[in-house]
Amino acid sequence: MGAEPYTSTRIVLKRRPRGAPRPEDFAREEVTLDPPGEGEVLVETLWLSIDPYMRGRLSEAPSYTEPVRLGEPIHGECVGRVLCSRDPRFVPGDLVIGMGGWQSRFVLPGARLRKVDPDLAPPSAWLGVFGMPGLTAYAALEGIARPEQGETVVVPAAAGAVGSVAGQLAKRKGCRVVGIAGGRDKCRFVTETLGFDACIDRHEADLQARLRAACPSGIDVYLELVGGDVLWAVLPLLNLHARMPVVGGIAWYNLSSLPEGPDRTPLLLRTVLIRRLRLEGMIVWDFESLRPAFEAEMSKQLAQGTIRFREQVYEGLAEAPRALIELLEGRTFGKVLVRVHA
Amino acid sequence: MGAEPYTSTRIVLKRRPRGAPRPEDFAREEVTLDPPGEGEVLVETLWLSIDPYMRGRLSEAPSYTEPVRLGEPIHGECVGRVLCSRDPRFVPGDLVIGMGGWQSRFVLPGARLRKVDPDLAPPSAWLGVFGMPGLTAYAALEGIARPEQGETVVVPAAAGAVGSVAGQLAKRKGCRVVGIAGGRDKCRFVTETLGFDACIDRHEADLQARLRAACPSGIDVYLELVGGDVLWAVLPLLNLHARMPVVGGIAWYNLSSLPEGPDRTPLLLRTVLIRRLRLEGMIVWDFESLRPAFEAEMSKQLAQGTIRFREQVYEGLAEAPRALIELLEGRTFGKVLVRVHA
Repeated sequence: MGAEPYTSTRIVLKRRPRGAPRPEDFAREEVTLDPPGEGEVLVETLWLSIDPYMRGRLSEAPSYTEPVRLGEPIHGECVGRVLCSRDPRFVPGDLVIGMGGWQSRFVLPGARLRKVDPDLAPPSAWLGVFGMPGLTAYAALEGIARPEQGETVVVPAAAGAVGSVAGQLAKRKGCRVVGIAGGRDKCRFVTETLGFDACIDRHEADLQARLRAACPSGIDVYLELVGGDVLWAVLPLLNLHARMPVVGGIAWYNLSSLPEGPDRTPLLLRTVLIRRLRLEGMIVWDFESLRPAFEAEMSKQLAQGTIRFREQVYEGLAEAPRALIELLEGRTFGKVLVRVHA
Repeated sequence: MGAEPYTSTRIVLKRRPRGAPRPEDFAREEVTLDPPGEGEVLVETLWLSIDPYMRGRLSEAPSYTEPVRLGEPIHGECVGRVLCSRDPRFVPGDLVIGMGGWQSRFVLPGARLRKVDPDLAPPSAWLGVFGMPGLTAYAALEGIARPEQGETVVVPAAAGAVGSVAGQLAKRKGCRVVGIAGGRDKCRFVTETLGFDACIDRHEADLQARLRAACPSGIDVYLELVGGDVLWAVLPLLNLHARMPVVGGIAWYNLSSLPEGPDRTPLLLRTVLIRRLRLEGMIVWDFESLRPAFEAEMSKQLAQGTIRFREQVYEGLAEAPRALIELLEGRTFGKVLVRVHA
C-alpha cells in the first residue's frame, strides 16, 4: 500500500463511439477516491478483464443494463488485492473479484466482491476460463444446448475466452467439435492445443464449403457468439432440432446501423421453422445456480491439466482501450486481459 | 357409391407459382383410379382442408418434406367416407381422415387413415379445431411456450384456424390474450366470440403503438404464425425470457425473393440475446404424444361449448385454388375448408 492509497487512475468514456471505438473515445483521469465507508472495501486492481460485451455498454441502445455514462469509468470485471476493508469478511491482502471497472483502484461494497482462491485457479483465470467466460460456455452447453455424445458442435471465436472453453467441454462430452477462428495460428492452436476435431479459418474463401466438409453429419449445436457471415454459413448445415444458444454477436457490435439488404430475417425464421431449431438468448447472470458445479469441474480439470487456455495480456491500464479495440477487430488471441498492477 | 366409383376429379400443380399462386398454376383433371389393392381403401372426399403450409409444398425450396411434383395433385388433409375397403379395419360408410390431397376420391393404405368419430367433434372440425391446426395450437402452448397465469400472450392470425384455438386455450390458462387480425369484423369476432382480451386490426396504422397499449405488461409469449410487420411490431415489446414458438410465417410464404433491406437479422438476434428470448420452430408431427391429451381436452370443451370456432367453406373441389389464394392473401375468416361432396 503506497503513500497515496486513495489515488486512482481511471479510463472514462469521453464520447460514445459510432461504429468501431477509437482511442479518442476514451480519456484517462487521475482521481482521489473517498475512503471506504462502512461495509466498503478499497481494492487495488491486478487484472482487468476485457470482453466483447463492453462494446454494448458504450452505446445508449437498450441492452441488458444501463450504458456507461459519459465521463464515468468503463465497466469491467477485475481481480484485485484488498488494500483496506470496512467489511469484516475481507482483510488487506485478500484477493477479490468484482466489477471494479477500468480503474487502478476502486471502492466497492464488500457484498459485491467475492474472494479469489488461487488454489482453485490462477488469479487471472478467475476472469477467464474459471470465471464469467468459462461459466458462460458451461451454461450455454449444460443449461441450453445439452449436446449428446456423437453430436456435432460448432464454436466460432474458438480461440477466444468463451469459445475455447465451450469446445473443450463439448469434446469431453464425446461430441465432434469444429471451431471457427481468424487465421492459421489460431486454428492450429484450436486443434493442436485445445483438441478440437477441426478448425476453419474464417479469413479464407468458401467458409461454408469448408464448414460442410468438416461437419459431414451436419451441425447439432451452434454456439452463436459472432453473427455475421459465420451465421449464414452455419444456417444451411443445421440439423433437425439443432440448438443455438445466442451468447453474443461480435460481428455486429460495431454496426452503427443495420447492414444493407436484402432482409435475411425470413431466411433465418424459415430455417428455424422447417428444421425445428431452438434459439435461446442467454446471459451468464441467469445461471448462477450452475456455478458450484462449474467451479468443481473446472478446478479439477485445471489441476489435471485437461483444460487449456491462453491469455493475451496488455500491460498497464492505459492499454485497455487498445485491448478492447483489437478484441472487437478479432485481432486478439485468447482471453484478453490488462495487467494493471503486477 | 355411384356408377363410376373409380373416377376422381383432382387438382394438380400445373406450374410452380412465383410469388402469390394464381389460378393458372393449377389444372383440373378427371382420372380413373386403380381399384384398391390389398390393405388399401377407396375414400370419397367430404371435406378438404386448406392450410397455409400448402404454399410451401408448391415450391422446390427445401422444406419439411418433398414438394408437390408438377402434374401431381396438391397435398392436403381430407375427411371422407369409405367407399370400398381392403383393410379389415374399415368398412364402407366409415368416416376417415387422411392425406388424400386435392381429389374428389382417393385410394390410400388403411395404415395412413384414422377413423373420425363424429361424437367427439363434427367431421369438418377434425380438420380444424379438433385436428391438425388445433393440435398445433395446443402443442405450441403446452409443448413449447408454457404460458403461466397472468402472462400476456399475443396471437396473430387470431381469427384463423391455429390462432383462434391458441388464444382460447391461453385464455383458459388465465393469460391476458391479445389477438391481431385483419379487419374490424375479424377483430370483433376475436374479442366477442372467442373471448380474447383485445384484438388489434393490422390494417390500421400504428400497429406497434396499439399493440403496446393492449399489452401494458409487455409480451411473454408470441405465437409466430405470420412474420412480416407483425413480428417487428411485437419484437420491442417482448419481455425478458419471452417465448416464441415459430409455427409459420404466412407474410413471407409468397415471397419470390428476400425482402429489401436493411438486413434486420442483427436486430432480431440482438433482441434474442438481451431479452434472453427462446425461439423454437415446431411442426405438429413432432407432438403426436400430446394428441390424446389434446383430444380429451378439446372433445370436452366442444361438448361444453367452451371453445368456439368458425369455418369458411368453399363449395366444390374446383374452388380449392381460390380458397388457398384467398387464405394466403389474408382474405379468409376462420378455418378454410372445401366441401367436396355433401
